Amino acid sequence: MRLATRENGCRDGQLVVVSKDARRCLAVPEVAPTLQSALDDWETVRGHLEVASKRLEAEPDLGLSLELTSLMAPLPRAFQWVDASGYLSHMERVRKARGAEMPPSARIEPVIYQGLSDRNLSWCEDIPSDASWGTDLEGEISVITGDVGPAPTSKEALEQVRLLMLVNDVSLRALIPAELQKGFGFFHSKPASAFGPFAVTPDELGDSWRDGRLFGRLKVEVNGEVRGDLRTGEDQDFSFADILQYATRTRGLSAGSIVGAGTVSNRDSSRGVACIAEQRILQQLAGAQAESLTRYLLPGDTVTLSFSLDDGREVFGRIHQMAVAAKEARRRPRFLDSRA
Amino acid sequence: MRLATRENGCRDGQLVVVSKDARRCLAVPEVAPTLQSALDDWETVRGHLEVASKRLEAEPDLGLSLELTSLMAPLPRAFQWVDASGYLSHMERVRKARGAEMPPSARIEPVIYQGLSDRNLSWCEDIPSDASWGTDLEGEISVITGDVGPAPTSKEALEQVRLLMLVNDVSLRALIPAELQKGFGFFHSKPASAFGPFAVTPDELGDSWRDGRLFGRLKVEVNGEVRGDLRTGEDQDFSFADILQYATRTRGLSAGSIVGAGTVSNRDSSRGVACIAEQRILQQLAGAQAESLTRYLLPGDTVTLSFSLDDGREVFGRIHQMAVAAKEARRRPRFLDSRA
Repeated sequence: MRLATRENGCRDGQLVVVSKDARRCLAVPEVAPTLQSALDDWETVRGHLEVASKRLEAEPDLGLSLELTSLMAPLPRAFQWVDASGYLSHMERVRKARGAEMPPSARIEPVIYQGLSDRNLSWCEDIPSDASWGTDLEGEISVITGDVGPAPTSKEALEQVRLLMLVNDVSLRALIPAELQKGFGFFHSKPASAFGPFAVTPDELGDSWRDGRLFGRLKVEVNGEVRGDLRTGEDQDFSFADILQYATRTRGLSAGSIVGAGTVSNRDSSRGVACIAEQRILQQLAGAQAESLTRYLLPGDTVTLSFSLDDGREVFGRIHQMAVAAKEARRRPRFLDSRA
Repeated sequence: MRLATRENGCRDGQLVVVSKDARRCLAVPEVAPTLQSALDDWETVRGHLEVASKRLEAEPDLGLSLELTSLMAPLPRAFQWVDASGYLSHMERVRKARGAEMPPSARIEPVIYQGLSDRNLSWCEDIPSDASWGTDLEGEISVITGDVGPAPTSKEALEQVRLLMLVNDVSLRALIPAELQKGFGFFHSKPASAFGPFAVTPDELGDSWRDGRLFGRLKVEVNGEVRGDLRTGEDQDFSFADILQYATRTRGLSAGSIVGAGTVSNRDSSRGVACIAEQRILQQLAGAQAESLTRYLLPGDTVTLSFSLDDGREVFGRIHQMAVAAKEARRRPRFLDSRA
């Protein structure tokens, strides 16, 4: 089952069930007006959504034509966004680039941070981006959880994975060193993230969702140039079960929490990268001089993230954004060319 | 105007307007069923809430009897909780206690972090607290904002202060050093915060709310013993205007964001403290040995925070919590003795 959120003038938008061909959608206001309201009462709502989904396949005239550009992030705002270091290869490379050490415990337990989620960007919304910020993309897979009690078993944790999403976790590299030096973690350097248009239930993913990892292909393009053609799930040192168990050591997670597994990164560097920071460190390690390193995003640059399962299905839809000077960034989608 | 949120079986509770004597309350479901819904559309809703508030004073039989123990946090869950180092005296003492340096920029701009807000504790809800966590309280004043655009003027920022609240920002001191060493800031060490029962509009505070600071008296008790009798606003190095301006350098804040000014701390140490960590460092500086330092909270300990204006009004109500072993902590209020 695939869910999405349509613009309707309200902050949380309108929940819709999406047809398999992504051409039609069906609102279910009597069941759940918003995705958060569905997550709040998932055990009850889920069955109704599945009925709507099946009707949408069975009745070709049912529902509305799906306009991709009218879709917001599946959760336009969320009560929590937590991101973790699922792929140690990313952390190793990026810390090397900053001249920072790996935490001694990094191979035993994930590193995790609390990010902002009071406004999530849609798949095609501008990335506010001043030229001095060192704006970078980070391609990630995330889950939306139900209520996860403190200290769940691995099985209990994974049972609370309600939906999966594709993320662009925007990072402002030029602001990170000074901010982390203050000791309290990211703030300015991690602005709003963007999410692929569709949130997908685990059962939709078949065997590609196993062992708390999603296996598939993540393609990363900047200005149409392929920067990465990666395998998610492979080289993922910490599964979503590991991450959820770690995150809940002193607390639970409430329904609607978004949890990311961190920037996808494969140890085989020939597959490329899901962020520019890694590309730069790989270039440095290959002997490149500072002035010849690939630059971070500047206003006008575009980013495309696409994820496909082994059968070719792009279940999450694509993320396709443009970096735009912060003062001019628009809250509304700018890309009418929808390649998702 | 004072607002509160009653338990009604829903995650966001029910918004009520509270009478001046805190004996009655009035729900306004046709205007705004929840506090977040009021904040989402404040310009429209505010006037209706004020009418309800005036009616409640004029008609002594209107509304329901207010049961303090039925109140949740004013925002039982919020899309953002940001806490800042408004009082440098706190940061100086706590960093000294941890043997950590002050960031070089700390006197020029606040240090800020993104905290959890997917579940906020009520004024009388247990603090989940294992004996090994070094559980500490932190007495703070916070604001709830409207939409704050990026880079507001000081005036624009303060115009978006919708409500003020009293906070107990629970901190797990024993977990902080290892967590901060990882470089990504607090996570396990900053579990859910508790909020005083009433959220208060700035106009209710008169001249005590000025220059982006709230001036009044914060009394802090542990097991009924006074640990601090402090003045808020005094020694507050960064005002809420400073903090909101700083927080919005690379992004806006959405309506319903909770922003704290950090642990209240006066330079005159004879006024005591609003957290145990500061008490311990003051004892150390006075020559106390490690084994004689005041201990952190253990299961069974109680914490009381009360704030009063110069005219004696306790506008926020009190926070009165018990530390309880994490496995036994209850989601429901345990104190029927309501001293608020």
